[in-house]
Amino acid sequence: MIVVMKKGSTQEMVQRMVERVEALGLKAHVIVGTERTVIAAVGEERDGKKESLESYSEVESVLPILAPYKVASLETKREPTVVRVRDLVIGGGHVGVIAGPCSVESEAQILLAAEQVKAAGARGLRGGAFKPRTSPYSFQGMKEEGLKLLAAARDATGLAVVTEVMTPQHVELVAHYADVLQVGARNMQNYHLLQAVGETRLPVLLKRGLSASMEEFLLAAEYVLDQGNQQVILCERGVRSFETHTRFTLPLASVPYLHQKTHLPVVVDPSHGTGIASLVPPMCVASVACGADGLIVEVHPDPHEALSDGSQTLSPDAFAETLARCRKVATALGLTMD
Amino acid sequence: MIVVMKKGSTQEMVQRMVERVEALGLKAHVIVGTERTVIAAVGEERDGKKESLESYSEVESVLPILAPYKVASLETKREPTVVRVRDLVIGGGHVGVIAGPCSVESEAQILLAAEQVKAAGARGLRGGAFKPRTSPYSFQGMKEEGLKLLAAARDATGLAVVTEVMTPQHVELVAHYADVLQVGARNMQNYHLLQAVGETRLPVLLKRGLSASMEEFLLAAEYVLDQGNQQVILCERGVRSFETHTRFTLPLASVPYLHQKTHLPVVVDPSHGTGIASLVPPMCVASVACGADGLIVEVHPDPHEALSDGSQTLSPDAFAETLARCRKVATALGLTMD
Amino acid sequence: MIVVMKKGSTQEMVQRMVERVEALGLKAHVIVGTERTVIAAVGEERDGKKESLESYSEVESVLPILAPYKVASLETKREPTVVRVRDLVIGGGHVGVIAGPCSVESEAQILLAAEQVKAAGARGLRGGAFKPRTSPYSFQGMKEEGLKLLAAARDATGLAVVTEVMTPQHVELVAHYADVLQVGARNMQNYHLLQAVGETRLPVLLKRGLSASMEEFLLAAEYVLDQGNQQVILCERGVRSFETHTRFTLPLASVPYLHQKTHLPVVVDPSHGTGIASLVPPMCVASVACGADGLIVEVHPDPHEALSDGSQTLSPDAFAETLARCRKVATALGLTMD
Amino acid sequence: MIVVMKKGSTQEMVQRMVERVEALGLKAHVIVGTERTVIAAVGEERDGKKESLESYSEVESVLPILAPYKVASLETKREPTVVRVRDLVIGGGHVGVIAGPCSVESEAQILLAAEQVKAAGARGLRGGAFKPRTSPYSFQGMKEEGLKLLAAARDATGLAVVTEVMTPQHVELVAHYADVLQVGARNMQNYHLLQAVGETRLPVLLKRGLSASMEEFLLAAEYVLDQGNQQVILCERGVRSFETHTRFTLPLASVPYLHQKTHLPVVVDPSHGTGIASLVPPMCVASVACGADGLIVEVHPDPHEALSDGSQTLSPDAFAETLARCRKVATALGLTMD
Repeated sequence: MIVVMKKGSTQEMVQRMVERVEALGLKAHVIVGTERTVIAAVGEERDGKKESLESYSEVESVLPILAPYKVASLETKREPTVVRVRDLVIGGGHVGVIAGPCSVESEAQILLAAEQVKAAGARGLRGGAFKPRTSPYSFQGMKEEGLKLLAAARDATGLAVVTEVMTPQHVELVAHYADVLQVGARNMQNYHLLQAVGETRLPVLLKRGLSASMEEFLLAAEYVLDQGNQQVILCERGVRSFETHTRFTLPLASVPYLHQKTHLPVVVDPSHGTGIASLVPPMCVASVACGADGLIVEVHPDPHEALSDGSQTLSPDAFAETLARCRKVATALGLTMD
Repeated sequence: MIVVMKKGSTQEMVQRMVERVEALGLKAHVIVGTERTVIAAVGEERDGKKESLESYSEVESVLPILAPYKVASLETKREPTVVRVRDLVIGGGHVGVIAGPCSVESEAQILLAAEQVKAAGARGLRGGAFKPRTSPYSFQGMKEEGLKLLAAARDATGLAVVTEVMTPQHVELVAHYADVLQVGARNMQNYHLLQAVGETRLPVLLKRGLSASMEEFLLAAEYVLDQGNQQVILCERGVRSFETHTRFTLPLASVPYLHQKTHLPVVVDPSHGTGIASLVPPMCVASVACGADGLIVEVHPDPHEALSDGSQTLSPDAFAETLARCRKVATALGLTMD
Repeated sequence: MIVVMKKGSTQEMVQRMVERVEALGLKAHVIVGTERTVIAAVGEERDGKKESLESYSEVESVLPILAPYKVASLETKREPTVVRVRDLVIGGGHVGVIAGPCSVESEAQILLAAEQVKAAGARGLRGGAFKPRTSPYSFQGMKEEGLKLLAAARDATGLAVVTEVMTPQHVELVAHYADVLQVGARNMQNYHLLQAVGETRLPVLLKRGLSASMEEFLLAAEYVLDQGNQQVILCERGVRSFETHTRFTLPLASVPYLHQKTHLPVVVDPSHGTGIASLVPPMCVASVACGADGLIVEVHPDPHEALSDGSQTLSPDAFAETLARCRKVATALGLTMD
Repeated sequence: MIVVMKKGSTQEMVQRMVERVEALGLKAHVIVGTERTVIAAVGEERDGKKESLESYSEVESVLPILAPYKVASLETKREPTVVRVRDLVIGGGHVGVIAGPCSVESEAQILLAAEQVKAAGARGLRGGAFKPRTSPYSFQGMKEEGLKLLAAARDATGLAVVTEVMTPQHVELVAHYADVLQVGARNMQNYHLLQAVGETRLPVLLKRGLSASMEEFLLAAEYVLDQGNQQVILCERGVRSFETHTRFTLPLASVPYLHQKTHLPVVVDPSHGTGIASLVPPMCVASVACGADGLIVEVHPDPHEALSDGSQTLSPDAFAETLARCRKVATALGLTMD
């Protein structure tokens, strides 16, 4: 850390701060600048020492130097992590596609959806059985019944089932039916849930929180990794900004940024990221173009009949056409897609 | 809802949309404008009908008319809800103060802090036993041991204990020791947790999520109210914006705004709202001035020694001085404070 | 507009509001809902009538129906506007590329840069002569001397010169040397400047403001169009959000969104949009993939020597490689690029 | 500056960077940490050197240490700047109030408004003659005719006239009639305008840009100060965030924050800061409570008839009542108000 002293700090103040730095087990180097003095504090800085030093009134600011995550870091593991489950491959130059309805609504719906998205090229099936809904008056999902239908759709198609788990008590139940456990954006910092999915051996699809920084996102992944589960898929699903013409703001630069910081694969969810069906296809293509390792897309046999998220859901035809365009771009850039 | 048709929609398209509106159990009124046609859809609109109508390509947009929350609404209950627990009174013209350290660290620390904040005028004691931390490598709290120390501090001082519960499984345990259950900002949309605290009969202090809209905040409260627990205290604790000079951006206008929408009391947390100890006192005074029903403030016997949040924590002296200023303003405005 | 009355409004209040609506020259339709009454106000709504109606205490809210811009709207002109100046073609299925250094620094620098970006495929040359700088102590540009060097570089290479004009008094001067007038993000709502560039017959490259909504962006374009200048190129250059890992947040969904609202072409500036050189190439490729009509990229013969924006500037080699990747994607999607 | 090298940098890379730091005229101190090496670069860092160093690929990041503004800094001038013009006093423990309509609309309107706000306690009269409007189709102000009416209102009441100037060419004209020149939020980074008002000897009321950081705000003031005009009043008027229930988000913590960084006085504009008339009174009181040196408030003899901003405008009675409450708080806190 770099401790920046306030202008006009006396030698005594600097000396006292050096002692405090050393009391924290760090080595202190004093650098006297033209306008102010800074103290470089060398050593492990990831455990609250910054806040402790910031609390002194003679300190202007404390600048961290190390990234706060370790296991997720590209500095820890250079080769990209590839997640493989059934025929779904995410990462390592292969763009894996997960698609399906927002919610499981009936056996007919989920089976039909599974066949349609598989035909278009998807290898994972999404579908919510437990639905986090902003309002207590909205449809909350079919719960275990929905999980069973997802499993049936997997049996029929071979698609890997990706579905959300909302609370630690449900992890065992959901893990019984699912191939990939999804942690939703609202739960990105639900640490007990992160630990609980970290204790399973299923891959985890972790959605970025609506206002999570990259560091917070990677530290949430770190909670899962820290339990010994190395199969984490990061999912950029858009953030909240002042923009209201789209449901969320989809910052695709986080894809190459994350690739420069972590070995974990990154998928994009343009359905939530835009909230508008007509914007989903171009954002799918752009995601592939900037290096996303996968896509997760809402597709419903009849979007108008969807019980949730209808306005951002693609029809099977629009989805197939979108994947065809994505495939062309992937090929042009030397990537593979099913 | 108002369904705005795209420019150039034909009469047939309008007629078909009228049928869809009516199929949803709503009454349709067609209004032909100078540039486009709108359909007013009258009836209950809180259950996903908007999304269903938005999914049609001839629809430009769908504008909701009703607020999505009901029980929390001032339209449902005109008189303000006052939360009383031990000597802590929040609302109804009385400004209640909750204070204490970020984390419970030891018996001596929490007892001393309790005595100090009580002497300054606080009637509630805050202190984290279960701590949600961004990094898995940070101090995670003393857990049940911390709860016992909080209860001991209550026995010694009579202060009401306000402490965070992070996951549904812990609700029973925390409720055994606490007087008020706190739901943190990261968990504002942890719906299973909201339902679990709603099933207790303890007051709930619900912190606003970092990027939660007012509607989402009130709908989170609605999850608690919907379980039959009417004692919800809303807490504005700052939101995430582009500003980085403060830890969060504290939008105090949410206090009078919420007072115009809901009967629930509103408290402000200027410690997290600013993240800088020297900004906490003026923001406490401003909170009282704009009508906050209470304050929740981080105070530690020795902020430099705090294991978490030291840089935003007041010393007992600074806290006492702050409350003295708040009291002057409260008196000037006809409010009461202990 | 839709005037939503507060719950509990009496018939008299509704009647009085109907009279006010009609006094504004609008036709009123009253619709009595299950929970509240709304008044549809039909007619021209673009001139402050909304604010007038919102100021009454019995009004809950006023919802506009019409987009506030007209000339820029796709409803006014269906065929896309294509901007052609020298060999630079922007729009109509052709991806035009503008590149060059942040600032003009010397004759040798700008000539070399021009040759290098032309060789890579650019057909427009960017380079600031008048530089808007956050600090009065930063390099402010070479001014008219810089314009002359840009003109010389055009004479040598045939590239179209795109350069910023900061204030109405300079429009004539800059227009004397430039082929395209750039209005910077900080000046997007500098209305006198918009009118002044609107009075010229040069194409205008209008950058989106750092926190401008889509409507504000299109209304800024409307100021230019309203003066009779139809050659406006919209430029998405990133917005300010809570994200700090990139300099700005680049919301590429604005490209297809704008294509659905306006006939004006849209280019993307990934250099400012990310602020990090290593993120520029993937964002260029993604921009082409989601339908951008052009790119504007910072390229310097030696980025480390750049007097401004060095950290987001590509080397000529990296730029050439980036355009090669863009070209592959453009071809795959049926678009053309030089 | 602190140059943080990437992990794994070799001694040669560090040595080469040291040479580059020294080539910039800075002194280099190398500090070898447990995980990475940093180079402290001591000396003047305010002129683009940071960007130059950031452009090297072996550099992880460059952390600035000095604030980029000088003349505005409290480190340069410890005693608060007090702006006095006619009977309006802003700063030094006195809360000055500026009020009036959004736009000058007629002689009768502005005269009546002036008398009303003066009676309530205002000592400055606001009123737009040149109006920056988002849409070219909105009322753009009465221009010079409006300035004359403002001057007449000043002659009748003695109030100091505060009015906006939008472009450098108008500075002389506006300065002929006004007592204080206002630079609007949209023009906060219109550097030619800042320099032009800096060349006058009138006080300048500088509004914060909608997404301006504190550093950018103070650097904009620095542009004015740098021309020799020391009379700058900073105005917090709200920022753009994801919040939509208010027109803007009003972050009052910027008031005490600025007081810790600069000697310039800070006023608050709760009318624009909230956009909702009923929220203006509590935000006025809160502004005084957190130490604002003044208020600027929209007041119209009949808000429903206002040609602009009606929904955020107070009636004269509501304004008088608001100031009465503010005065009570000011007195309680030892401040003075007219």
